[in-house]
Amino acid sequence: MKSKNFASDNNAGISPQAMRGLIEANEGHVPAYGEDHQTTQAKEVIQQWLETRADVYFVTGGTAANCLSIASSIRSYQSVVCHPFAHIENDECHAPSFFKAGVQLRFADGPNGKMKLGSLDGIIESSHGVHGTLPGLISITQCTEVGTCYTPNEIKALSNEAHQKGMHVHMDGARFSNACISLAASPAELSWRSGVDLLSLGGVKNGLGFGEVLVVFNKEVSDRLDYRVKQSGQLMSKMRFLSAPWIGYLESGEWKSNAQNANEMAMIFSEKMDRFDFIKILYPVETNAIFCEMPEGLPEYLEKQGWNFYPFNKVGGWRLMTSWDSQIDEIEAFVQDVEFWAHKMS
Amino acid sequence: MKSKNFASDNNAGISPQAMRGLIEANEGHVPAYGEDHQTTQAKEVIQQWLETRADVYFVTGGTAANCLSIASSIRSYQSVVCHPFAHIENDECHAPSFFKAGVQLRFADGPNGKMKLGSLDGIIESSHGVHGTLPGLISITQCTEVGTCYTPNEIKALSNEAHQKGMHVHMDGARFSNACISLAASPAELSWRSGVDLLSLGGVKNGLGFGEVLVVFNKEVSDRLDYRVKQSGQLMSKMRFLSAPWIGYLESGEWKSNAQNANEMAMIFSEKMDRFDFIKILYPVETNAIFCEMPEGLPEYLEKQGWNFYPFNKVGGWRLMTSWDSQIDEIEAFVQDVEFWAHKMS
Amino acid sequence: MKSKNFASDNNAGISPQAMRGLIEANEGHVPAYGEDHQTTQAKEVIQQWLETRADVYFVTGGTAANCLSIASSIRSYQSVVCHPFAHIENDECHAPSFFKAGVQLRFADGPNGKMKLGSLDGIIESSHGVHGTLPGLISITQCTEVGTCYTPNEIKALSNEAHQKGMHVHMDGARFSNACISLAASPAELSWRSGVDLLSLGGVKNGLGFGEVLVVFNKEVSDRLDYRVKQSGQLMSKMRFLSAPWIGYLESGEWKSNAQNANEMAMIFSEKMDRFDFIKILYPVETNAIFCEMPEGLPEYLEKQGWNFYPFNKVGGWRLMTSWDSQIDEIEAFVQDVEFWAHKMS
Amino acid sequence: MKSKNFASDNNAGISPQAMRGLIEANEGHVPAYGEDHQTTQAKEVIQQWLETRADVYFVTGGTAANCLSIASSIRSYQSVVCHPFAHIENDECHAPSFFKAGVQLRFADGPNGKMKLGSLDGIIESSHGVHGTLPGLISITQCTEVGTCYTPNEIKALSNEAHQKGMHVHMDGARFSNACISLAASPAELSWRSGVDLLSLGGVKNGLGFGEVLVVFNKEVSDRLDYRVKQSGQLMSKMRFLSAPWIGYLESGEWKSNAQNANEMAMIFSEKMDRFDFIKILYPVETNAIFCEMPEGLPEYLEKQGWNFYPFNKVGGWRLMTSWDSQIDEIEAFVQDVEFWAHKMS
Repeated sequence: MKSKNFASDNNAGISPQAMRGLIEANEGHVPAYGEDHQTTQAKEVIQQWLETRADVYFVTGGTAANCLSIASSIRSYQSVVCHPFAHIENDECHAPSFFKAGVQLRFADGPNGKMKLGSLDGIIESSHGVHGTLPGLISITQCTEVGTCYTPNEIKALSNEAHQKGMHVHMDGARFSNACISLAASPAELSWRSGVDLLSLGGVKNGLGFGEVLVVFNKEVSDRLDYRVKQSGQLMSKMRFLSAPWIGYLESGEWKSNAQNANEMAMIFSEKMDRFDFIKILYPVETNAIFCEMPEGLPEYLEKQGWNFYPFNKVGGWRLMTSWDSQIDEIEAFVQDVEFWAHKMS
Repeated sequence: MKSKNFASDNNAGISPQAMRGLIEANEGHVPAYGEDHQTTQAKEVIQQWLETRADVYFVTGGTAANCLSIASSIRSYQSVVCHPFAHIENDECHAPSFFKAGVQLRFADGPNGKMKLGSLDGIIESSHGVHGTLPGLISITQCTEVGTCYTPNEIKALSNEAHQKGMHVHMDGARFSNACISLAASPAELSWRSGVDLLSLGGVKNGLGFGEVLVVFNKEVSDRLDYRVKQSGQLMSKMRFLSAPWIGYLESGEWKSNAQNANEMAMIFSEKMDRFDFIKILYPVETNAIFCEMPEGLPEYLEKQGWNFYPFNKVGGWRLMTSWDSQIDEIEAFVQDVEFWAHKMS
Repeated sequence: MKSKNFASDNNAGISPQAMRGLIEANEGHVPAYGEDHQTTQAKEVIQQWLETRADVYFVTGGTAANCLSIASSIRSYQSVVCHPFAHIENDECHAPSFFKAGVQLRFADGPNGKMKLGSLDGIIESSHGVHGTLPGLISITQCTEVGTCYTPNEIKALSNEAHQKGMHVHMDGARFSNACISLAASPAELSWRSGVDLLSLGGVKNGLGFGEVLVVFNKEVSDRLDYRVKQSGQLMSKMRFLSAPWIGYLESGEWKSNAQNANEMAMIFSEKMDRFDFIKILYPVETNAIFCEMPEGLPEYLEKQGWNFYPFNKVGGWRLMTSWDSQIDEIEAFVQDVEFWAHKMS
Repeated sequence: MKSKNFASDNNAGISPQAMRGLIEANEGHVPAYGEDHQTTQAKEVIQQWLETRADVYFVTGGTAANCLSIASSIRSYQSVVCHPFAHIENDECHAPSFFKAGVQLRFADGPNGKMKLGSLDGIIESSHGVHGTLPGLISITQCTEVGTCYTPNEIKALSNEAHQKGMHVHMDGARFSNACISLAASPAELSWRSGVDLLSLGGVKNGLGFGEVLVVFNKEVSDRLDYRVKQSGQLMSKMRFLSAPWIGYLESGEWKSNAQNANEMAMIFSEKMDRFDFIKILYPVETNAIFCEMPEGLPEYLEKQGWNFYPFNKVGGWRLMTSWDSQIDEIEAFVQDVEFWAHKMS
C-alpha cells in the first residue's frame, strides 16, 4: 500500500477511461500531425466542455502550454505579471524567456498564493519606460501553487484590471479540474466567462498520461499558434495518442470523479492532520494539496516508514498531495504513523 | 484494407510490444520527471543496444531531439552543415534557430540525399570570418530523406572530415532502425563506432507511439542536457510512459522485425512498380520509401481509389512509404490499381 | 595617395558637415537616451527629407537596423524572402535569427543582384504549412550588393506582389543615397511611395561616422521599436552624437554631393577599366561599386603596389569600390598600374 | 549655468582629450570593422592600463557589454546572481535574456547596494535541480547603483565564493573609473587581481561619447566574442571612431581627472546638503551620486528653478549626480535654491 504516496499527483498513473481512449485509438492508419479524426473529435469535446469554440492545441506538457501562451500573446520586450509562487517562475527552468527571448516575469504578491488586486499600477510605474519591460500579460494559477482557488469574482476582478491596462490574461490551469470541483463552478465560468484569454488546461495531474491543452479563447491576443507548436517541437506526429484520451476522459465524467476523489481525500486528510496540535496547516485546503509544518523528527520518521512527500522551501512547509487514485486507507495508515511517532515522543 | 495507406510511417499505430510496455507501466505510483525505475531500465536497455554507456534523454519528438542536439553542441554564432534535403531545414519550421537563436544551416549537396565528402573547406572559406557563421556541426540523416543509407565507411569519412575541422557530428536517426536492417549493421557501428557524437534515435516511425531519444556519445561536445530538456518543455512529468515502451520494443526484437517488414515491403513494392515502364524510380530503394515519377493522371486516379501518398516537391516525385504493419496484399491491391489504370489508358 | 583605397566605402572617414555636426553637438548637458533637442531636430530633418512623418530610430549600425526591422515586423515562425546575395544572409553572422529566434531566410534569385518578380508563389507553396516557415517579409537591397539599382517601378511591382501575399516590404538601404543619385529619384519615391514599409537608411557608407537609421513608414507592420532598440543594446546614452550629424549632412546637401562623387568616380573608373580587354565588368556600374574579373597575376600585382580591394566569392570577381572622398588621381594611378602590368605581361 | 544639471553623467558631453582623439582619427582610409591601427593601439593602451593582456572588444554601450559578457560565459539554462538594484535587472529592458534566451536573474540583496557574501548556497539550493536554473555567474556593479564601492577585499571574497561554486565573476563597471579614484586602487586591483573574470569597462559616463569596452580577463570562461559582437549588431564598421578616443583619454590621464572632479563635486555637494536637517542622505557618498530624501515641495520647487534630477523609486529617494564637468558654482547655486526654499517655508 505504501508503494502509493503523497509526493505528487504526477506520480500517479493513467486513469481507466483515459487509458481506454489511448488503447482504442490504436486502430489502423490515420493522418499524422493532428489531421486525424480523433484529434478533430477531441477538440470538439473540449470545446463543448468549455462551452465555446475556442482554439485548442494539444501540446506535450504544462511548461509548453504556459510558455506558448506567453510567446504568442506578448512581445520580447514585455513582462508577465504573476504571483511569486508561480510555476512559470519557480519550476520551469525559466522557460518563458527560452520560448520568447527577452520576456521578464514580475511579481504581484498576495495571501494564499493569489495575486493581489490593484498591483498593476505600481508595477507599470516602476518599469520606467523603455528602460524596463512593458507589462503585457498577467498569469494566474488555478488552483494556485498552494492549492487554493480564485473564485469567479476574483478572476473577473483581476481580468478587468489587466484588460484596463491593455494587458491580457493567462491562466495556468495545471489543476484546473480540481478548482472546478472545489468551487462547483463550470469550466466556462472559471475561464472565458471571467475574462481569461488563454488557458493552459491540465490533464496529466488528474489522470491523463501525456500532454496538456493550450486553449485560446480570445483569438485577437494570439497569432499562428499552429506554427509555434510545430517550431517548438510540440507537434506530435502520432497526435491521436495525445488527443484521443481526452474524449472518454471528459465524456465519461472521469475528469470530475478523478478531481473529486483527490479533493475529498485531501479534505479528509487535512482534517485528520489538523487534530494533531503539533501540526500546523499553512493554507486553506481547497483542492488536493496540504501544506503543513511538522515538528522536527517527524518527517524523517515518516520517510523511514516509506512515505514519500516533499518540503516546499518557497512556502516554508511540507506538501502532502493526494491524487485521483488516493484511497482512504493510505491516509489512515499515514495518520497512524504520525500518531505512533507522537506517542513515542511523548 | 485501404484504410491503411502509403502516406507515411507516422500514420501507423503502436506495435504490440511497445503498447504492452506502455500498458504495463501503468502500475501504482512512481516518481515523476524520469526518476522512476522504468526510465532507469529503459536507459540501460538503450545503452546495451548501443553497446556503450552514452547519455540518454527521452524527449517528445524528433524535432526536439535534433534541435537540442544542435543547441547543446554549438554556439549561437555557429552553423550546422547538412544536406539540402535535411528534415532540420525543410520540415521543422526552422526550429534549429528557435532552440538556439542565431544558428544558421548551410548545405553540402550530394547525390542520393547524402552529403558529399570534401564540402567543408569551401563552406568554411565562404564564411569569411565573423561576417558569416562559424561551421560547428555536421548533421547527417540515416536513413536519408530519400530512403538511402550511409554505409559505415561513408559515415566514418564524413566524421573524420568534420572532426579534423573541429566540428562535431550529429545523426538524425528518425529511421535509424531501418538503416541498421538495410545495412545489416549494428546500432553501434552506424553511430559512435563511426564517429557520430550525438544521435537523434527515432522510434515513432518504427512502431512506438510517443517520443524519441537523444543520445550523447561524446560527452565533451555537449553540456547539461538535463536542463535543456526541461527548459524547452521536453521533460515529461509521467516519464515512464515515454520510456517504458522502449524496454520491450528493444528486448523482444520488435524494433528489428518492424523495420524488417517495412524495408521488405518497400523492396517488393518497388520491384513491382519498376516493372511499369511509365514509372520511374528516382532513388535506390534501400529502406522503406519509394520515390517515383508517375505519369499525369495516375496519382489522381489512385487517390480516387482511396490511396494516400504525397508528392515531394523538393525531390520532384511521389513518395510511397511502407510501415512496420504494411502487408503484401495492400501492395498488390495498389499495383492492381496501377495496372487497371494503365489498361484503361492504353 | 595609395593610403586611400578601393576596398570599401566603410574605410573612408567622416565627411566635413557630418563631423561639424558631431563637434557642435558637444555643448553643455542635454537629456540622455534620445530625449535631447538635437535628436528631435534630426528626426524632423529626416522626415522632411523623406517627405513623410515616418517613425525614425537611430541605431548603431546597419545590422541592427536590418534585424530590428525584421524582428518588429514578423514572428518567430516566419521567413524573410531576399536575394541570395543579401547582406542579411551573407554578411551579418546570421543576425536576423539572433534578433528573432526562429526566423528563416529564403531566397528569390534574379539577375544583377535583384529579386525576380513572381517568386513568392513558389516559395509559399514549398513551405508546406507548419512544417516550413510562413513567408512574412521581403527584404530588398537598394542599391544591391552588386551596385545595381531597383527602379521605382521595379520596387512597386515587388511591393505589390508582397502586399498581395500579406507580406511586408523592407528595404536595406545601406547605400540608399547612392541609388537616389543614380536614378535621380527622391528618397520618397524610392521608399514609401513605392510601397516600402520599413527602411534601413544608411549613412556610414556615405560619410557619416556612426550609426544608421531605422525608418518605419507603415506603422501597422511594426510595434514598439523604442523598446526593441533599448532591449537589443542599441539605445545610445549620449544619443545626440549619433543623431546630430544627420542634420547638417542632410540640410547642407552633403549626402548628395558625397554620393554623387562616389558614383561618378565609379563610372569613370569602370569606363577606364572596361577598355582593357582582359578585364570583364560583371554587372552594370550604376552606383559606387565595380565587380570585375581580372586575369591571374593582376590582383596580386596590384596588391603588391599597395592597392586594397577584395575578391567577392559569391559573385565570382573582384570588387573595386569608390567612396565619398575618392579622387580622380587615385583612379588614374590604379589604372596606370594595370597598364604597366599589361605591358610587362605582353 | 542651469543648462547643466544633476540628472545624470550621461547628460554631459565629450571631454577634451576624448574629442581630440575622435577628430584626429578622421584621417584617410583605414580598414573597417576593427582591423585598423587605431583600434590595435587602443586595445594595447587598455591592456597597459589594466596591466594584463586581456581580450578587449569595443561595443556600442553598457547594455551590450554586460549582456555579451553574460551570453558568452553562461548557458541558456543558467542564472546570473546580482544585487536587486543591478542595472541588468532594472534598466536594460531585460536585455540579458534577449541576448541569451532563457537566462534568469536571481538576487542576493545586501546593504548599500552591495551583494552580501554567503548568499550563493541558499540560491543554489532553492533552484531545486533542473526545475530551476543553474547559477552560473555573479555580476557585481562597481561602483554600485547607489554610488558605493566594493573594496578589493570585498571583491575577492565574492569572487572566491563564486569560483568555489563553479561560477564566474562579471563586473559591470559603467562607473569603474569613479571607483578607482574613490578607493585609490588601480584598475588591475579592482578587477582581475581580485578575481573578476569579465569586465564591462565604461567610458561614456566619464567623458567619452560613444561605446564601452568588454574585457575578458579569464579567457576560459568565454568563447568567440568576436562572433558574438558581430552577430548582435555591435561591430562598428568605422571602428576607429569608437576605439581611438580611448587612447588619449587614458594616456593623458583624463580618465582620472574626469572621475576625480565628479567624485569631488559630489563630496562637496553632499556635505552641503547634509547640513540641512530636512535632507536625509541615504547612502555613503563614495563616488559621484548622492541619493537623498527631500521634504515634500522641495523637489517641485527646485525643478521649477530649472534643475534636473530624478527620483529613484527602487531606493526610495532622489538622485543628484555630478559629472566630469560639474562645477562648484552650479552646486552652490543649487544649494542656495534649497536654502531659499527653506527660508520661505519656515
